[in-house]
Amino acid sequence: MIKVGIVGGTGYTGVELLRLLAQHPNVELHAITSRGEAGTAAADMFPSLRGRVALRFVDPQAAALDKCDVVFFATPNGIAMGQAQALLAAGTRIVDLAADFRIRDVAEWEKWYGMKHAAPDLVAAAAYGLPEVNRESIRQARLVANPGCYPTAVQLGFLPLVESGLVDLSHLIADAKSGVSGAGRKAEVHTLFSEASDSFKAYGVPGHRHLPEIRQGLARAAGKPVGLTFVPHLTPMVRGIHATLYARIEREADFQSLYEARYQSEPFVDVLPFGSHPDTRSVRAANVCRIALHRPQGGSTLVVLSIIDNLVKGAAGQAVQNMNIMFGIDECAGLTQIPVLP
Amino acid sequence: MIKVGIVGGTGYTGVELLRLLAQHPNVELHAITSRGEAGTAAADMFPSLRGRVALRFVDPQAAALDKCDVVFFATPNGIAMGQAQALLAAGTRIVDLAADFRIRDVAEWEKWYGMKHAAPDLVAAAAYGLPEVNRESIRQARLVANPGCYPTAVQLGFLPLVESGLVDLSHLIADAKSGVSGAGRKAEVHTLFSEASDSFKAYGVPGHRHLPEIRQGLARAAGKPVGLTFVPHLTPMVRGIHATLYARIEREADFQSLYEARYQSEPFVDVLPFGSHPDTRSVRAANVCRIALHRPQGGSTLVVLSIIDNLVKGAAGQAVQNMNIMFGIDECAGLTQIPVLP
Amino acid sequence: MIKVGIVGGTGYTGVELLRLLAQHPNVELHAITSRGEAGTAAADMFPSLRGRVALRFVDPQAAALDKCDVVFFATPNGIAMGQAQALLAAGTRIVDLAADFRIRDVAEWEKWYGMKHAAPDLVAAAAYGLPEVNRESIRQARLVANPGCYPTAVQLGFLPLVESGLVDLSHLIADAKSGVSGAGRKAEVHTLFSEASDSFKAYGVPGHRHLPEIRQGLARAAGKPVGLTFVPHLTPMVRGIHATLYARIEREADFQSLYEARYQSEPFVDVLPFGSHPDTRSVRAANVCRIALHRPQGGSTLVVLSIIDNLVKGAAGQAVQNMNIMFGIDECAGLTQIPVLP
Amino acid sequence: MIKVGIVGGTGYTGVELLRLLAQHPNVELHAITSRGEAGTAAADMFPSLRGRVALRFVDPQAAALDKCDVVFFATPNGIAMGQAQALLAAGTRIVDLAADFRIRDVAEWEKWYGMKHAAPDLVAAAAYGLPEVNRESIRQARLVANPGCYPTAVQLGFLPLVESGLVDLSHLIADAKSGVSGAGRKAEVHTLFSEASDSFKAYGVPGHRHLPEIRQGLARAAGKPVGLTFVPHLTPMVRGIHATLYARIEREADFQSLYEARYQSEPFVDVLPFGSHPDTRSVRAANVCRIALHRPQGGSTLVVLSIIDNLVKGAAGQAVQNMNIMFGIDECAGLTQIPVLP
Repeated sequence: MIKVGIVGGTGYTGVELLRLLAQHPNVELHAITSRGEAGTAAADMFPSLRGRVALRFVDPQAAALDKCDVVFFATPNGIAMGQAQALLAAGTRIVDLAADFRIRDVAEWEKWYGMKHAAPDLVAAAAYGLPEVNRESIRQARLVANPGCYPTAVQLGFLPLVESGLVDLSHLIADAKSGVSGAGRKAEVHTLFSEASDSFKAYGVPGHRHLPEIRQGLARAAGKPVGLTFVPHLTPMVRGIHATLYARIEREADFQSLYEARYQSEPFVDVLPFGSHPDTRSVRAANVCRIALHRPQGGSTLVVLSIIDNLVKGAAGQAVQNMNIMFGIDECAGLTQIPVLP
Repeated sequence: MIKVGIVGGTGYTGVELLRLLAQHPNVELHAITSRGEAGTAAADMFPSLRGRVALRFVDPQAAALDKCDVVFFATPNGIAMGQAQALLAAGTRIVDLAADFRIRDVAEWEKWYGMKHAAPDLVAAAAYGLPEVNRESIRQARLVANPGCYPTAVQLGFLPLVESGLVDLSHLIADAKSGVSGAGRKAEVHTLFSEASDSFKAYGVPGHRHLPEIRQGLARAAGKPVGLTFVPHLTPMVRGIHATLYARIEREADFQSLYEARYQSEPFVDVLPFGSHPDTRSVRAANVCRIALHRPQGGSTLVVLSIIDNLVKGAAGQAVQNMNIMFGIDECAGLTQIPVLP
Repeated sequence: MIKVGIVGGTGYTGVELLRLLAQHPNVELHAITSRGEAGTAAADMFPSLRGRVALRFVDPQAAALDKCDVVFFATPNGIAMGQAQALLAAGTRIVDLAADFRIRDVAEWEKWYGMKHAAPDLVAAAAYGLPEVNRESIRQARLVANPGCYPTAVQLGFLPLVESGLVDLSHLIADAKSGVSGAGRKAEVHTLFSEASDSFKAYGVPGHRHLPEIRQGLARAAGKPVGLTFVPHLTPMVRGIHATLYARIEREADFQSLYEARYQSEPFVDVLPFGSHPDTRSVRAANVCRIALHRPQGGSTLVVLSIIDNLVKGAAGQAVQNMNIMFGIDECAGLTQIPVLP
Repeated sequence: MIKVGIVGGTGYTGVELLRLLAQHPNVELHAITSRGEAGTAAADMFPSLRGRVALRFVDPQAAALDKCDVVFFATPNGIAMGQAQALLAAGTRIVDLAADFRIRDVAEWEKWYGMKHAAPDLVAAAAYGLPEVNRESIRQARLVANPGCYPTAVQLGFLPLVESGLVDLSHLIADAKSGVSGAGRKAEVHTLFSEASDSFKAYGVPGHRHLPEIRQGLARAAGKPVGLTFVPHLTPMVRGIHATLYARIEREADFQSLYEARYQSEPFVDVLPFGSHPDTRSVRAANVCRIALHRPQGGSTLVVLSIIDNLVKGAAGQAVQNMNIMFGIDECAGLTQIPVLP
């Protein structure tokens, strides 16, 4: 059994990790920490866990996280980078669900995240945890930077095009729509029910923190810089990301076959028949990315629809997938839930 | 492995049965029927099942349902009663998720359901599938009438009070609120998104079909007729029933202990600490009923809050629970999913 | 023109007052105050007001509220009681949308609201602003306590029964459901979209602050104390209250005629045909209470459905109605909007 | 007073027309027709109209529509073209909210709408009812083709760019998101609450009927054909369209000033400060289009956000605006409602 610790489990990625890990056949939950909620039973904060998760939140100091085989950081940005070194030294592996180790260029990271990086040396050592790109690095990594939710949907949707160089890489467009859980469980006015319900809006158009992460991933796949316009939107639903991607074709190809071939061995990427319209509920609560291709009126613009559950393939599920790879067990272990529809 | 057939799988209880049974360790899905959709892959109609359910809908004639160990009817009312006799004769067991066998009094059934009963003899032979009341009958039954969604939430909420006779049984009140999936997947104006969203209303106040079913169950528990006012409401959410129950105390008791004792061995009934306020999402997609007691201002009125997911403990999950009991396997097999929150 | 000031306009009752008053033919908006947002244009905070409301929030000190004919307090509880005396002395009239002057019994108020009352002398002078009960007092009042949202829906629904004494007044039940805007625009976790959406729950069952207000009103109408169980619920919609009321009949009467007669001259109470099921969207954004009567199975329990928009007839609209009465103008002025459906 | 008839008032554009026209100072509602609902009071079907609209639906034959000054067709496509000739001959003017007269190229119309056009001669005579482009033609028209909802949002968002020719007109992208009311009040499975709620999807990507309408309008503005990729999405909200538009800059300009100048005299187009993020609720229930410009990272792609209420500026409100223009009255008459927020 893999002995697991979770740092900062009071948010949505925390409770989603608990849901998945409590049902994982190879995992033993060892500790979950929270400074503010120390002493509270996890199942008191999240009654969905009643009878299934017996852990109480403990203060980080008292958690003996260095006794864990792996520690998940489900914390705000900037926490993992302060604690990673000591845990790694103790032999514990780490999956960080926040952004601390996602961007290779530390200066770029510091610009977008507005703080000094506390462990720049570890950035190079971290594997970027998108298994469809980096499976081998993840397997050998002791520290995995779990990708952001938008970056997962957008990169998986663009990858075959970018790797093949069949489209104009200087003007990619990603119009992405997210459910409100992507904003986390912080008390803020703009994500109140009465603000976000029955309404729709774009946000962060001048520049969202996931932009440099996506650009980095696509550039790596392309072998050169890419131009990307990324516009995120807030949608009145709880879970789900729908990325609508636009690329201008430069060389003809059988794009459907390209995608099917690229992802044929991937257990968690599902390429739909050409011309499909996936809805986000078809992945609700499950670790899968579904992708559909369109070429409207046979023109020169390719449209790719890429959907995930932001809390699963976009966060906790992908983190578990990364853990499975790191520990050499079945990559699908604990991730076989069928999506909940309706 | 239990060989399972499903009749009429194109509605919400159908897809929910598929979700649960496809993950059930003791089940082999044999056939799913639909007259209108014969030939369509179940996963084409419900993309959530892609890669997990390979079955296609078949015409009922071609389904060889009599080769199944058990057949679930996820059909409109009035279908199972026409087919049950032949299947039972072939040695197949039946769980009917519709209402055909729920009401003992055939004349009463015909009044509320507006049709002639096709198999009145089978009504007496059927077990009413509320395991918390009828586990032994279910174990021996070849035909189980799976309870309605409201009747499950309301009966489980009232049972300890009614069995003990501590409250005024002539004036019980059940104010129940249901998510819209309870109305099924029929194309109707009043359940369109633009009709049911961002709004709330009562319906069926003069008399809802679940009223005689609840009264029958409570009367059986009380050993005498009970008086019940039942008001259902439509709530703008997909899944979930919240029953708010009111009873006037006639004799004092430790009601919290009464409930805890009544349900202490029940795997799927969770009595919360006194004074709790469960939300329906705490049971989303899981086979559990959570119950909380209140006694406002220490007065003479007891308030019981009883919640379920109408598609799981209120339909497909309870049907699987009944199947588990009928076949003598672990009652929890295939029903261990943790609720999906948020 | 009536010169109007608003204290504390950054919440939902504030923006709703602005929406109604900016379209009111007899009103001139003079000032709107906010300590935190002084200098911000109201239309920058609420873009729905762009081009229609030119006011900026000003610091309360700088607002010259004593130059207004009437000041609305759209503040948290406990603010109006500190400022009322000075404004009244300056000749300004007051409508308080908070709870400071709703409860006659100051000790009772202090118990439920957890603070010392700053102006107990004014409590007796204030008129309780439910025009259907108190129109004459309101007309002569200089200080009006605008009723709470639940109290408006529940009192209007029960009044004819309570005034006539035809039902058992010792065991009334009010099962009320509110949209989330009733909780205001404060940043809190439990009203986040991801918490309150696609879910339903009761809250405050042991005792909600609106309980003593409702009891006081019903007792005044009955001429004696009444027994009331009041259970509020949070519903995943923005606006709307649906109160489902239960009363046991003690003497027979034509209840439908009773209601129609009681409210026949009321411009903002609409008694629907017997047996109707009003939905909350039928009053969305309008100052109206719709009421429907039921008597299930002809039994001894009367069921009353009473619906309002909590922000209009339950708050800002009723406040404007009270202002109209206080200033002797057409009671319907500025309140003729047709509900927005769908 | 303008004597108004409505053909086919049982859908959402019908009830929205009734809401707006019943409050219009210059309008007398004469008749509303429905074959299926003849005899039913409009307020019985739409209780929001109780006490405000006394009309009953009448059979089209009995409606004496030729006595009206203007008739609105709130019908499915293909109805108005069969009745227009006779009404026009009788001296009645027409505003068609359906698509019959929107596309100049009759063959193109027949291809997209799948039927033979019954009145091709009238197509050329009809004015396309986008006042911001066609005000003079509308003023003189006897027959106005009211634009579609998506075409209104997308054209208003693109117009200044297309008229000025500053961007690459061969590769425009319109990623549009609509509330579910855009699909109308027909009973269909895919717009049921349980299908469309808490989910998000694209639809019609291979080709939506609004595509040729948008292309026609933009080509007219550009003076040459334009290339447009149009992807509509279904969003879990009732009202609202959010169009996110992408264009590649070819010549530099002060785009913000360009938009402000273009729309400075338009009463129903609101250009927000550069870099704003309008939410659809800021136009809910009001006849306004709000537009915001972005230029992410100062790059070569311009992003335009354009929002409307699909039932108001996208349908009934614009129809009333067109009527106002046709009859030479104040263009804003009856259209001064402030948006409903929250």
